[in-house]
Amino acid sequence: MLPRMEERVQSVSPSQLAALVRDIFVRRGMSETHAALVADVLVWAELRGMETHGVMRVPRYVEFIRKGDLNVQPSIRPELETAACVLLDADRAAGPVAMMEATRAACAKARASGIGFALVRATTHTAALGYYTQSAAREGFAAIAMAASTPLMAYHGARAAGVSTAPLSIAVPGEDEPLALDMASSVVSMGTLMQSRASGTPLAEGSALAADGSPTTDPRAASIPLPLGGPKGSGLALMAECLASLLTANPILAEALERTPESKHHKQNALIIAIDVGRFVAPERFREEVGRLVADLKRLPAAPGTEILMPGERGSRNAERQREALPIPVKLYEELKALSG
Amino acid sequence: MLPRMEERVQSVSPSQLAALVRDIFVRRGMSETHAALVADVLVWAELRGMETHGVMRVPRYVEFIRKGDLNVQPSIRPELETAACVLLDADRAAGPVAMMEATRAACAKARASGIGFALVRATTHTAALGYYTQSAAREGFAAIAMAASTPLMAYHGARAAGVSTAPLSIAVPGEDEPLALDMASSVVSMGTLMQSRASGTPLAEGSALAADGSPTTDPRAASIPLPLGGPKGSGLALMAECLASLLTANPILAEALERTPESKHHKQNALIIAIDVGRFVAPERFREEVGRLVADLKRLPAAPGTEILMPGERGSRNAERQREALPIPVKLYEELKALSG
Repeated sequence: MLPRMEERVQSVSPSQLAALVRDIFVRRGMSETHAALVADVLVWAELRGMETHGVMRVPRYVEFIRKGDLNVQPSIRPELETAACVLLDADRAAGPVAMMEATRAACAKARASGIGFALVRATTHTAALGYYTQSAAREGFAAIAMAASTPLMAYHGARAAGVSTAPLSIAVPGEDEPLALDMASSVVSMGTLMQSRASGTPLAEGSALAADGSPTTDPRAASIPLPLGGPKGSGLALMAECLASLLTANPILAEALERTPESKHHKQNALIIAIDVGRFVAPERFREEVGRLVADLKRLPAAPGTEILMPGERGSRNAERQREALPIPVKLYEELKALSG
Repeated sequence: MLPRMEERVQSVSPSQLAALVRDIFVRRGMSETHAALVADVLVWAELRGMETHGVMRVPRYVEFIRKGDLNVQPSIRPELETAACVLLDADRAAGPVAMMEATRAACAKARASGIGFALVRATTHTAALGYYTQSAAREGFAAIAMAASTPLMAYHGARAAGVSTAPLSIAVPGEDEPLALDMASSVVSMGTLMQSRASGTPLAEGSALAADGSPTTDPRAASIPLPLGGPKGSGLALMAECLASLLTANPILAEALERTPESKHHKQNALIIAIDVGRFVAPERFREEVGRLVADLKRLPAAPGTEILMPGERGSRNAERQREALPIPVKLYEELKALSG
C-alpha cells in the first residue's frame, strides 16, 4: 500500500465505512441490496490497499448519477443467451451491480457447460475486477475478467492516450484463499501518478508521458501512463476493447478518439469467463496442487530484502491487518459524510 | 526482427524450407499431414520474424522424438467433453498437431455454444501461439490461448527461475488480417538473451538475472529473464500453469522445482478459448469497428522516429517481405539438410 502523502487520515471501522457508503447510494434511489454491494466492493478494495479503487470513487459515482450516466434502478437484461454464454445489457448499472450479476451468470453457465462466458454492455466503472474473480474462485471456478474503458494510457509508439489502462484479473481456487492476479496493462496506475504528484517523488523512466506527449519523470507533468512492456500492454488493452466493447457493439475508444457526442457519457464494458474446475479435475486435487506449487515457489531463494508473495497475498494481508480500522483521509471522510447527510 | 549476429545466412524459399522440415519429420515416422503442419507452423513463425519459434526448433524436436518425449504417431483423445468444452489428451503429440486439433475443437464448440474451451494435456513445445489464434480469427472467432512450460523465468522477488515465460495470445478478426497479440510474460525472451550473448550487446537494466540469481546487464552472464512488470508477468505465468497444467492434472512447474523423475521429460500443456463473434454481433459490423479503431489509433501523433503499429502488423509485413526468400543461417540450414538426408 502506498502511503497517502500530505494528507491527514483518520481511523474508520470498515463496517461503519460500508454503512456510510451504502447510505449515500440508498439516498440517491439505489436499492439496499445494490447499495450494499457497491459499498462492499469499494471497501473491499480499500481494505486490500487498492485505494484508487476504494471509497475515493464514491464522489465520482455520485456525479455519474447526477449526470444520468449511472442508473440507480437498472433493469439488467440478458440480450442473448446460450447454454454457455450470456450478453447482459447492464442498463447503466453501477459497475459492481452489473459485474456481480455477470459473475453469477458466468458461474451458472459454467456449472451447466464447463465454461461460462458473460459479456456486460454499458455498465459504469467496474471497480476492482479481483472482487468478482475471487468470488467465483471461492465457489470453485477459475475466472478471467477484463474491462474496457476510455483512453487514458498511451498506445505504444503514440504521443497521446489511445487505449485504457485495461485491467485483467485471473483467479483460481487456492488451498486457503484464492490465488488472484489483478493487474492493469500500464506500467503505473493513474493512482500512482496522482500519488507521485502529491508527494513530489520523481517517476521511474518509462512510466509516463506529459500532457504534450513527451516522456517525463517529473511527477507534476506526468499525466499519461505508458503501457506495460510497450506493445504488450497496449496490445492487451486494445484486445480488451475488441472483446468487451466490440462484441457488445458498444465501442468506447473509437467514440472517444473521434470525440463523438456519445463519448461525453461515462460507460464501461466488461467480460468474465468462469471455468468449473470440478468438471476437469477433482477440486481438492486442484487446490492441493495449487498449494504444492505455492510452497515450491516460496522455497525459492529470495532476492535480498524481499519476500516471495503470491498474487493477491499482499492484499489479503492488508485486509487482515486493517479489518478493525481503516485509515481514511479526513477530507475524503468529511466529503462522504456530507454526501450521506 | 532482430538481426542474427555473427552468423552467415543464406536465402531459402519458404516452400523449399517447409518441404525440408516436412521430410525430416516424415523420415521419423510422422504422417505427411502432421509433418506438413509442423513445418507450416515453424516456417510461419520464421517468416514473421520470430526466429526463436522458427526452424531453429527442428533439431530440438528431433531430439524429443529420439528421447521418446514427442510421439510421432499420437492418438489424441478427448478425455472429457461438454457442449462447450473438451479436454484433449495429446499423447505427447508435436505441439502444432495438438494445438491445431484443440483450435478446431474450440471453434466447433464455439459454433455450437457461443464459446468453446479446449484444454490440451501433455503436448510438446507449442510453438507460436499466434498461429492458432489467428487461424481461429480467420474463421470468425475471437481466440485466447495460453501455454504452460518449464521454469525459465524468475518468479518476482526470487533469485531463481520459478515459472515459464508463459505466452499469451489473443486474436480477433480484423478488417483484413486478424489483430493478433502474441506476447511472452517476460521482459525479454530467451531468444533475445541468446542474441545479446552472440552480439555482446549489454541488456537493459531489469531484463535478466545471472545463473547465480544476481541482476545483470552483462549479456554473457544473463540467463534468467525477469518477469514483465515484476509481479504482473510472474503472476500471469503462474496463472497459465494453474489453468493449463492443474486443470489437466499434469503439473509441470512443481515437478521441475522438486526435480522429480517425471520432470526429466519435456512436456507442455495449453488451452485455447474460442468465441463465435457472429453469435454476439454481425461479423461485418465487428470487422468494420476493428478497422475504425485501428484507423483512429493510427491517426494519433507518433513518437519521433516511430510508427504506430497494430498487434501482429510487423509480423505480417515481415512475412510479406520475405515470402520469396528467407534468410536462414548457413549452419542451421546444413543441419536441417543433414537431418532430412
